[in-house]
Amino acid sequence: MLAKQLIERKRDGGRISPDEFRTFARAYAAGDVPDYQMAAFLMAVFWRGLDRTETAALTDAMLTSGETLRLDHLHVGRVDKHSTGGVGDKVSLVLAPLVACLGVAVPMMSGRGLGHTGGTLDKLESIPGFRTSIPLDEATQQLEHIGCVLIGQSREIAPADRKMYALRDATCTVESIPLISASIMSKKLAEGLTGLVLDVKNGSGAFMPQLDRALELARTMVALGDDHGCPVVALLTAMDRPLGRACGNALEVEESIAALRGEGPDDLMDVTYALGAEMLVLGGAARDHREARGAMERAIADGRAAEKFREIVDAQGGNPSVLDDPSILPQAPAREVYVASRAGVVARIEPKTIGRGVIALGGGRTRVEDTVDPAVGFVITARPGDVVRAGTPLATTYARDAAGLAAGRAALDEAIVLADAMADPPLPLVSHRVTLAGVETLA
Amino acid sequence: MLAKQLIERKRDGGRISPDEFRTFARAYAAGDVPDYQMAAFLMAVFWRGLDRTETAALTDAMLTSGETLRLDHLHVGRVDKHSTGGVGDKVSLVLAPLVACLGVAVPMMSGRGLGHTGGTLDKLESIPGFRTSIPLDEATQQLEHIGCVLIGQSREIAPADRKMYALRDATCTVESIPLISASIMSKKLAEGLTGLVLDVKNGSGAFMPQLDRALELARTMVALGDDHGCPVVALLTAMDRPLGRACGNALEVEESIAALRGEGPDDLMDVTYALGAEMLVLGGAARDHREARGAMERAIADGRAAEKFREIVDAQGGNPSVLDDPSILPQAPAREVYVASRAGVVARIEPKTIGRGVIALGGGRTRVEDTVDPAVGFVITARPGDVVRAGTPLATTYARDAAGLAAGRAALDEAIVLADAMADPPLPLVSHRVTLAGVETLA
Repeated sequence: MLAKQLIERKRDGGRISPDEFRTFARAYAAGDVPDYQMAAFLMAVFWRGLDRTETAALTDAMLTSGETLRLDHLHVGRVDKHSTGGVGDKVSLVLAPLVACLGVAVPMMSGRGLGHTGGTLDKLESIPGFRTSIPLDEATQQLEHIGCVLIGQSREIAPADRKMYALRDATCTVESIPLISASIMSKKLAEGLTGLVLDVKNGSGAFMPQLDRALELARTMVALGDDHGCPVVALLTAMDRPLGRACGNALEVEESIAALRGEGPDDLMDVTYALGAEMLVLGGAARDHREARGAMERAIADGRAAEKFREIVDAQGGNPSVLDDPSILPQAPAREVYVASRAGVVARIEPKTIGRGVIALGGGRTRVEDTVDPAVGFVITARPGDVVRAGTPLATTYARDAAGLAAGRAALDEAIVLADAMADPPLPLVSHRVTLAGVETLA
Repeated sequence: MLAKQLIERKRDGGRISPDEFRTFARAYAAGDVPDYQMAAFLMAVFWRGLDRTETAALTDAMLTSGETLRLDHLHVGRVDKHSTGGVGDKVSLVLAPLVACLGVAVPMMSGRGLGHTGGTLDKLESIPGFRTSIPLDEATQQLEHIGCVLIGQSREIAPADRKMYALRDATCTVESIPLISASIMSKKLAEGLTGLVLDVKNGSGAFMPQLDRALELARTMVALGDDHGCPVVALLTAMDRPLGRACGNALEVEESIAALRGEGPDDLMDVTYALGAEMLVLGGAARDHREARGAMERAIADGRAAEKFREIVDAQGGNPSVLDDPSILPQAPAREVYVASRAGVVARIEPKTIGRGVIALGGGRTRVEDTVDPAVGFVITARPGDVVRAGTPLATTYARDAAGLAAGRAALDEAIVLADAMADPPLPLVSHRVTLAGVETLA
């Protein structure tokens, strides 16, 4: 009877108490509330929303449906970064070792790619031998020893969220700010963090393209963190073009390794440094952003960041030689340079089209159960605003065969828009900073 | 994939095409669309509504998911009456034989009681031997021979509606005007009618208590009938007090038999005559309401209406002696007269409280699977506006035992409000008439 009461009340715009949310979420996780009642409830929430107290209660209910990492004994700051997902977004691979080598523990649980956005787990697994599925006690030990672990969401973490997320996907109730926030935060809060940095993507390739919705998502998660005693800082970053040059799993690992060696593209490094500075300050390893930035630049220049990544790869069963010889990553047999068909300016590089192109090459997923080809993808050297001639190389497609090359060519034809002039300037790379104090415009 | 597309589109306020509705409803009936996706869709419909074309398409999809009666060979009008449900509403039992004996065929499919409202099937089954579950071909034969059949919704009729109604009940998506309208009309249109009269209840005891919503429901169903070539007239009738005196299954059969013999209470007769006049005109058996009313009064006075009921009872396996000796109906062993506790005026008789009192006595259902005690209930002789003294008899409780009598007393204490004066006058008994031409105020 509780389920019907809560569906009806939310349907009519009423509020659910924390106790009711707890009972409801537990009954759902235990199978005592059927999927069809939860589906109706979720659509009512999509419609009516949840206020701050309700969102906190739902988060708490999902968090406490499973295990949490107990890391208080570490006596160092524990800070993670979460991104709402983008194309070419390999920041985690650079950021986690970089921050960890500077004395902040990074217990990072990531996801897989779905739709046009990639996933950190898929990228890591393109390193031969790399394991992303590690029991929580083993993960805790690795964190104690080397200060970083890069894993998938364990089955023990927030099982109610896992079950509910699958249902939301099937019932078109994903794009609800309170539901997204509660889902993300229930998993992140299970990591035993002392701080969390969010990378909320903004622009046409983002999960939530409109600026006002992206800001609302950021504010909601910052508030949720505060309600659970975990300070959260959110940065809004541009996803109106791919981040960096490489899009595709092994290609992105290769670019990440280059970045850890000081050879990363500027946009990737700027986003990494901006997020890293927040993490280092939250984790107590730097007094301010300026000090943090200096420390990160030195850690890359003197090789400590790359060395930390080698330790992580080694600890998780991957071949650490990848740091010295990225050619041991899976290689695509077919390659083709894509050139400008006309003279002009690169007016736009549409990330969604690139992401769908990676799927067309076999490197992404349209369904959770799809497998990915780690070798394929694009390296896009052109940037919005570049002035090009007919024949100027803009990108390279990495494919399995000639059909893949053709699919890649079609995707690049659609994604890279050449024009006489830029219509709109690209979005600022890091545009807003959201904390409990409010929203700060950075650019 | 279709399910997700349709959920998303309706969620965002878009329209579903007739073809899509057909495919979706068939896939749901066949089990290819899971309950949880239909639940999310139904909540999105509850929120966003359906326009006239969509409602017609949904009705059609449910109608064509099953069998329909083929009655064109009858060469007489076939008219049914549907009520949205009330307390003490035994109109069908009087109306069906009354109209049938005047030359209009009445293929009436009714429902069971649930919650505070009673159901015609439960009432009929209190007649010893009466069968309400009859195969469609047998029902058609009875209709040919005696012009009336009173049955439950056969499993062959609109199976998609049956499955969807159970889901709506579990997911709080019942009270949606397009969903209610499509559900009712998909079943009624399966009866092969040439006309339909709707009794839309209005007031505190109605399924849809607000006048504006009741009118919208009426207008929606009138339009739906027109879209399917079936003329529909709706009357709004009062359900701010029970209809007639008897509330409880066998007690209502007894009152219905009295009504067919010319001894029915005025309010029951007025509603019956108003609905019957519409049926006779729609069915081509009377030129206007005045002629219809005269014909009905004569059919009651000369015994033809009661005789038709006897034929129906006999044809459906019931004991026809019930017409002469209602004491063969189940009798409640415990009875108690309820008297006024103070002098004053009967300010209100709350139908919901009376309906719940019948449930408390064992004569109604809170869940579909409950069984009902046919003998119990109330006979309420008091009417709103009556001036009474302390000790004036107001009602009689019919119960199984002393505990039932106590429950009945408690229900009557709450339901019958005695005051110094009437606060609000009772609603007009038949207040509005809704046709394709518009809404006519009758009182």
